[in-house]
Amino acid sequence: MTERLVPQLILKNRSYRRFDESVKMSHETLEDLVNLARLSASGANRQPLKFMLSSDPQKNAMIFPHLAWAGYLTDWAGPEDGERPSAYIVILGDTEISKNVGCDQGIAAQSILLGAVELGFGGCMIASIKKQELQHALGLPERYEILLVIALGKPKETVVVETVAEDGNIKYWRDAQGVHHVPKRTLDELIV
Amino acid sequence: MTERLVPQLILKNRSYRRFDESVKMSHETLEDLVNLARLSASGANRQPLKFMLSSDPQKNAMIFPHLAWAGYLTDWAGPEDGERPSAYIVILGDTEISKNVGCDQGIAAQSILLGAVELGFGGCMIASIKKQELQHALGLPERYEILLVIALGKPKETVVVETVAEDGNIKYWRDAQGVHHVPKRTLDELIV
Repeated sequence: MTERLVPQLILKNRSYRRFDESVKMSHETLEDLVNLARLSASGANRQPLKFMLSSDPQKNAMIFPHLAWAGYLTDWAGPEDGERPSAYIVILGDTEISKNVGCDQGIAAQSILLGAVELGFGGCMIASIKKQELQHALGLPERYEILLVIALGKPKETVVVETVAEDGNIKYWRDAQGVHHVPKRTLDELIV
Repeated sequence: MTERLVPQLILKNRSYRRFDESVKMSHETLEDLVNLARLSASGANRQPLKFMLSSDPQKNAMIFPHLAWAGYLTDWAGPEDGERPSAYIVILGDTEISKNVGCDQGIAAQSILLGAVELGFGGCMIASIKKQELQHALGLPERYEILLVIALGKPKETVVVETVAEDGNIKYWRDAQGVHHVPKRTLDELIV
């Protein structure tokens, strides 16, 4: 490989929170993405993750109200109708397999999102979830613990990565043009 | 993109535990891989992860004895001299930034390993670590919590993915030819 694709994909894989909801994602595409998670590493190979897929408007509408969107954008309640995710992958921990998933859901989510980006989609990992309410809304048995929700769709916003300013503020923000700015720490700061 | 690369990379990205130790990895390559983690998602964009890099034999030798290798291969104490990792990335949680890293280390580790695979390297996420001893050996200040060690190098073993048999046994095993077999659950089993 002469041209490296991973750096390009990782840069393109921003946390998107606004989508063109008219672009659908098929159940097969979601299965394909879960298969990437399936083939990714799992602590002690226990594979305790399970996945609930949603790609139809009714089910999507059951999930949406239980998610918190962009905590730092305090005057934004989340994407409006027409800009909401076309699909979701709810990552669950199967407590009958293991009560300790380590960081498996992070590994799985990254595989899923990189796969989605390559297909022209994008999304956002959401950990701020009204878990009990979502569990109830989806009729999920108690053995499953909701770990993470991945919102997916055709991104409809511009997200730019910037360097954290001297004040150290890492809060992302949206400018008057609707561009989403994400301050990232420098490489120097990250290496001990 | 007509030919999808992500599925290929994910399949190629097995957990490798034996390496051609004569193939070195430069400090610059490790920095390049950490940069992929830097540009990956972080819960609430807090970016609490820090990274300690090791690519020289002396430092590698300080890390190696504090790692547990392949728990299910009970008659194998880990890679022998010459087959050990050429480099390590130790992922740390900076508790002065946040005591809760969520699953950031999983996201970061997956980015790093996919980047490494594209460059012809490979590795293994190791969570079974004698943390106190490693912290001491590396002289790491208390503010840093060791979360994960990524062993890296030029893979020197064959790893094959298989389907979990009916008995449900997920333990990986090594055959007489030294091929490492990893049973993975089926997609059907993973989707709720």
